[in-house]
Amino acid sequence: MAKDKKFVTEITSRDEDFAQWFTDVVVKAELVDYSTVQGFYIMRPYGWALWENIQKSLDSKFKATGHENVAMPMLIPESLLQKEKDHVEGFAPEVAWVTFGGKKELEERLCVRPTSETLFCDHWAHVLQTYRQLPMKYNQWCSVVRWEKTTRPFLRGREFFWQEGHTIHETAEEAIAETHQMLNIYADFVEKELMIPVIKGQKTESEKFAGAEATYTIEAMMHDGKALQSGTSHYFGDGFARAFDVTFADRNNGISYPHQTSWGMSTRIIGALIMSHGDDSGLIMPPAVAPIQIVVIPVAQHKEGVLEKANELKAQLEKLYRVKLDDSDNSPGWKFNQYEMKGVPLRLEIGPKDIENGQCVLVRRDTREKTFVKLENLEAEVERLLKDIAENLYATAKANLDARTETLSTMEEIVASSKAKDGFIKSLWCGDEACEDAMKEQAGLSSRCMPFGEQDDIDGVCPVCGKKAKHRVIWAKAY
Amino acid sequence: MAKDKKFVTEITSRDEDFAQWFTDVVVKAELVDYSTVQGFYIMRPYGWALWENIQKSLDSKFKATGHENVAMPMLIPESLLQKEKDHVEGFAPEVAWVTFGGKKELEERLCVRPTSETLFCDHWAHVLQTYRQLPMKYNQWCSVVRWEKTTRPFLRGREFFWQEGHTIHETAEEAIAETHQMLNIYADFVEKELMIPVIKGQKTESEKFAGAEATYTIEAMMHDGKALQSGTSHYFGDGFARAFDVTFADRNNGISYPHQTSWGMSTRIIGALIMSHGDDSGLIMPPAVAPIQIVVIPVAQHKEGVLEKANELKAQLEKLYRVKLDDSDNSPGWKFNQYEMKGVPLRLEIGPKDIENGQCVLVRRDTREKTFVKLENLEAEVERLLKDIAENLYATAKANLDARTETLSTMEEIVASSKAKDGFIKSLWCGDEACEDAMKEQAGLSSRCMPFGEQDDIDGVCPVCGKKAKHRVIWAKAY
Repeated sequence: MAKDKKFVTEITSRDEDFAQWFTDVVVKAELVDYSTVQGFYIMRPYGWALWENIQKSLDSKFKATGHENVAMPMLIPESLLQKEKDHVEGFAPEVAWVTFGGKKELEERLCVRPTSETLFCDHWAHVLQTYRQLPMKYNQWCSVVRWEKTTRPFLRGREFFWQEGHTIHETAEEAIAETHQMLNIYADFVEKELMIPVIKGQKTESEKFAGAEATYTIEAMMHDGKALQSGTSHYFGDGFARAFDVTFADRNNGISYPHQTSWGMSTRIIGALIMSHGDDSGLIMPPAVAPIQIVVIPVAQHKEGVLEKANELKAQLEKLYRVKLDDSDNSPGWKFNQYEMKGVPLRLEIGPKDIENGQCVLVRRDTREKTFVKLENLEAEVERLLKDIAENLYATAKANLDARTETLSTMEEIVASSKAKDGFIKSLWCGDEACEDAMKEQAGLSSRCMPFGEQDDIDGVCPVCGKKAKHRVIWAKAY
Repeated sequence: MAKDKKFVTEITSRDEDFAQWFTDVVVKAELVDYSTVQGFYIMRPYGWALWENIQKSLDSKFKATGHENVAMPMLIPESLLQKEKDHVEGFAPEVAWVTFGGKKELEERLCVRPTSETLFCDHWAHVLQTYRQLPMKYNQWCSVVRWEKTTRPFLRGREFFWQEGHTIHETAEEAIAETHQMLNIYADFVEKELMIPVIKGQKTESEKFAGAEATYTIEAMMHDGKALQSGTSHYFGDGFARAFDVTFADRNNGISYPHQTSWGMSTRIIGALIMSHGDDSGLIMPPAVAPIQIVVIPVAQHKEGVLEKANELKAQLEKLYRVKLDDSDNSPGWKFNQYEMKGVPLRLEIGPKDIENGQCVLVRRDTREKTFVKLENLEAEVERLLKDIAENLYATAKANLDARTETLSTMEEIVASSKAKDGFIKSLWCGDEACEDAMKEQAGLSSRCMPFGEQDDIDGVCPVCGKKAKHRVIWAKAY
């Protein structure tokens, strides 16, 4: 068992050094590998399988709400990027520029897309003619490049994978309804499938997307009390449409500009999943997206009948679940640790004595609780346990969110709290960017969002300037 | 009907100008749109849905044969690209170079991947330790960039979508078996789902992939008699492994280099599909991958009960097929033309008289044959017709392939034939690159492959130099 123990202790304790724990886990669980190019990561089979499960679920929800997938070019001419003033200011400083094609210097340099609003608008200017074509509700799955200075796997990469939805509509109302619909789809997915509680709200002016009229967000809290922006949905009004001359013949025989949205969720959500649910033994995968939901480990597998039975149970369960049988010649103990590191929600052990007794052992990854199960009850018990694991992951994350959320009203309280521990701090706010800046300077906190449903009963003052408050804001340190 | 007619006649006749017909079809059927950047195309919803169906089918075959998906970075440092001599010579002249990140010039320029052998090798050098990890059988779905001079949608783009499989194995035998397995998967897919007959064979030295020991290919013939390389599979030996220092502890306690393969199929295959099956009214989609397999067109849809019945039939069929109901206010005639252009294999018409008679009308896209079907027989009839359409598409393409394939033995015959019409010419060949060059110069033909199963009974001379022949080769003009 010494070797097994060492394997586990090779990762840093979560409470000792959360950042190092995170890096250890993503590498040891074989989600990513570092590449030769700084800030670019290799998605290994286990990491990509997780992303594929996330894609599959989101993609079906997008299609069910009438969205169609497309693919835009990966390169954007500089002149196209510059058409919308705020947008270019937001993105131009951090793009990668292609300047040569083969041996020939390009007449105009091209950036690798950091996001594709400009490309969609250019396409729509070309194909949109009449209101009969509206809405156009598009999505694409791709990677984008942003030349970040400091990088970490999943959290901030120079290249990352995401989906970007882009839609245009006849009216502002329809477009705004779309942004809310998509935010709700994100929130439901993250809460019900990734089992991470989120707070929905609107970004402040200084935190909104470059070129948007309004940005909506879902914010999650990680185990260490820091915030992670988990999905955003933007309303653009007709700003981009005017900049790109996207028009259509409207119902009144006039020419109108469509109203536009975009929305995105990226592989950052995998970072959120890791930092919400993991523990000192590694990952814990929420069952809905786990690449392996159940790992079958034969015990004393050289004994007669053990491998046969293990294979039989695997065949039975894989009609319903994603199952892996590990019959390698590693020790059972090594395997236990390995799949705990990988966060497989449920482990099934089967050995000669179990077979004799017509049972097997199920071990949950979250609580490590061991259950002996009669084989005739296996399917029902697996279903119950997976459901229970999911609920427990959510409850644990929710308890952390609640325990680390405070409502405070003075700057002294806020500064003291932010120094004592990381978490979400709710307070009123006057709406001034200067007060946001002061909050950053004095307490090290940025505004995460103005939470929905908490903006109606504003009665009090801004903790920074003492003027009448207009909004309620959640402040936090953020990834 | 004047408007309808005009709609159809807006595309060039296939036999008048095949190249223009192709361009007309891809745009009018809304597969692609041209982008602002020359040589980059926008995959519109209908085109991308087709690619998604192709992806889904291939991906499940890859997974069923033990391959795992991964994602590598999109950028490759110049020093990494240069590690394998033949490879860099083949690709460096046509890559796009990133030279700036934000405002900062990079110390080393990075190319946008033209293919990812170098990245996979770099990763393997990092993670491979022991024979127990072998084989590693990876695949990725992505786009790649090659700075082509002349470009056409699907056939030659500066960016194109594909999958690239990359595997390493303990032995040469295993690796070679892998290349054949994947070539067979490609061939089966193209023949049985895209309904395009292909010829399997090996590329000559001058036509093989840069850095490969052997390249295997499937070659298809387009309607105009030109060849289209539809999928390739490469065996690398341990050449890349040596160049990148990829090693493993082998079974004999020594250090060995793994044997490597790669294989790819791209969106060119959509070009093949279009040019194999289309006609003067537009596309004809093979049912297995058609984004819409059946379009339901209500006739006199304002009359009572028509739309209800149309919706009911749609609901019934979409349990089994991909179905679209077009209840827009365009005329039925306009709709007929529209979905013929898009190549929907089967059209279902339902009007008041049909409802009275308990029937509907099915019209096949390929032969335009009209069948009246009792509603109780609908599912069986749809199944029969879709199967028949698929078989007919294959038979038609096969007849074209056979009619345009000649076996010739003298240069005079070959030159005369290549001037008379395009097609495949089979002849013997000595194996000299000089004779391949001469074939290009004198007859305008390149070697497509040395077909499998036709290399054993070589008895004769090379038509170019008259020396003893070693191979049988298929020559053609190629896309």
